[in-house]
Amino acid sequence: MKIVDGKNLAENDLSILKEEVKTRSNPPSLGVVQVGKDSASSLYVKKKQQAAKSIGLRVNIYEFSEDISAEELKREISLIEDEGVIVQLPLPSSLDSSEILNAVSAEKDIDMLSDLSTGMFYNGTTQALPPFVAAVRIVMKEYNVSLKGAHVVLVGSGRLTGKPLFVYLTREGATVTCVNRDTRDISQFTKKADIVISATGSPSLIKGEMLKKGAVVIDGGSGSLNGVVKGDVCRSSVEKKASLLSPVPGGVGPLTVCCLMHNLLSFYDGS
Amino acid sequence: MKIVDGKNLAENDLSILKEEVKTRSNPPSLGVVQVGKDSASSLYVKKKQQAAKSIGLRVNIYEFSEDISAEELKREISLIEDEGVIVQLPLPSSLDSSEILNAVSAEKDIDMLSDLSTGMFYNGTTQALPPFVAAVRIVMKEYNVSLKGAHVVLVGSGRLTGKPLFVYLTREGATVTCVNRDTRDISQFTKKADIVISATGSPSLIKGEMLKKGAVVIDGGSGSLNGVVKGDVCRSSVEKKASLLSPVPGGVGPLTVCCLMHNLLSFYDGS
Repeated sequence: MKIVDGKNLAENDLSILKEEVKTRSNPPSLGVVQVGKDSASSLYVKKKQQAAKSIGLRVNIYEFSEDISAEELKREISLIEDEGVIVQLPLPSSLDSSEILNAVSAEKDIDMLSDLSTGMFYNGTTQALPPFVAAVRIVMKEYNVSLKGAHVVLVGSGRLTGKPLFVYLTREGATVTCVNRDTRDISQFTKKADIVISATGSPSLIKGEMLKKGAVVIDGGSGSLNGVVKGDVCRSSVEKKASLLSPVPGGVGPLTVCCLMHNLLSFYDGS
Repeated sequence: MKIVDGKNLAENDLSILKEEVKTRSNPPSLGVVQVGKDSASSLYVKKKQQAAKSIGLRVNIYEFSEDISAEELKREISLIEDEGVIVQLPLPSSLDSSEILNAVSAEKDIDMLSDLSTGMFYNGTTQALPPFVAAVRIVMKEYNVSLKGAHVVLVGSGRLTGKPLFVYLTREGATVTCVNRDTRDISQFTKKADIVISATGSPSLIKGEMLKKGAVVIDGGSGSLNGVVKGDVCRSSVEKKASLLSPVPGGVGPLTVCCLMHNLLSFYDGS
């Protein structure tokens, strides 16, 4: 039974990126759009800011009040030039997320969340991957988990997690099942899976008895229990069944931040 | 055991569309881009042309020789104005399909195959559905097949079929498994499925013994055997197990053409 050390993998990777940044005459900067003062958002913004700074990149935070209009916010976003732009989610409920995310043009959209970037990824017209997908890819490669012919069960079909993973895993030759809140008995699927990737935000949803012996389990959850970020996996019971566990915290989370930096550097490759 | 009569459903639907066209002062026309002289393509072009004409719409066929350059073809496509545009696939192998499909702007892209249209569908920022998905939706509604909580196995993850169906079915609350050529034993999945939708182009891939008693089977295949279009389903054996079969020919095929006309009329709603 191995535990993925995402923090360590991310640190190593960031130190390589830091060397790359040193070779750039004009390294890109990271623009972070934050609307309102959601505390979880602020935490994630801080992590991305820290990662960017640690590799020598400048970060510009664009803060807006919760009552900004969609038109004004879109205009502000379109005015940001020459940097990778992320819009920290969730946005206040008064704003339509898709509409705002579409204000980020594809060449700056390092989170790959606009309709155009999404379609490019989905149709394979770009090599770039959404950061969460790229993070899962790193874990699979680092721990020699083969995807071709493997049966992967995705628990949750969210825009940031399950849906893009389906696209990626299918392309890699995996057999993919996506279960959701309407699935009558999730465990009938997870029990057969070689790999389970869960991203629902329901703490302790995934338990050891739901798994096949030796399964690979990736926790992509980020729920909240009494103010603490909690994954989807009941770690104590899953550890008894799984052969590899990517936990929360310390698994794909730090790697996702790292992969955002990869996109930033490859989108602005200085050419 | 019922057999989906897609031809009849499509004819009824087209006659409703015909009445709608009569109410339009300026009905849209259909622009069909065809490169080279692939015989299967010509057949599909003819069917779309017939459907459009049957409801009173004008059709413009833009024929180009096989050796047209990507640049020239993209320019020609961008010059087509004020009509729904489809690029008949497959294109000659000298052309990159994605690059050509991206020359169709989203407001004309009634097949929904460009990166932007794909992303809009995937992210739910448009109500429109790719025609094949809309055709499957009609079958499900017409025969009262409930998707919420149902387990659907998609055989094949093609750009026109499996991938967009995954997006749609997941959104409708189905549990979706996508199997492919790397899946070790397809029947272990299909045997558990409430609904099997196959679109691989492998004639007779789906046999009765691979199904659960009472399963719904949608044949979305369009392979070719001795010059005749063949579905993926071995009809004689599947009829003994399934409760509903949408066959090839005469199932989702005519409905897909019909749904293309729906998109044409809704994209150009006269407003």
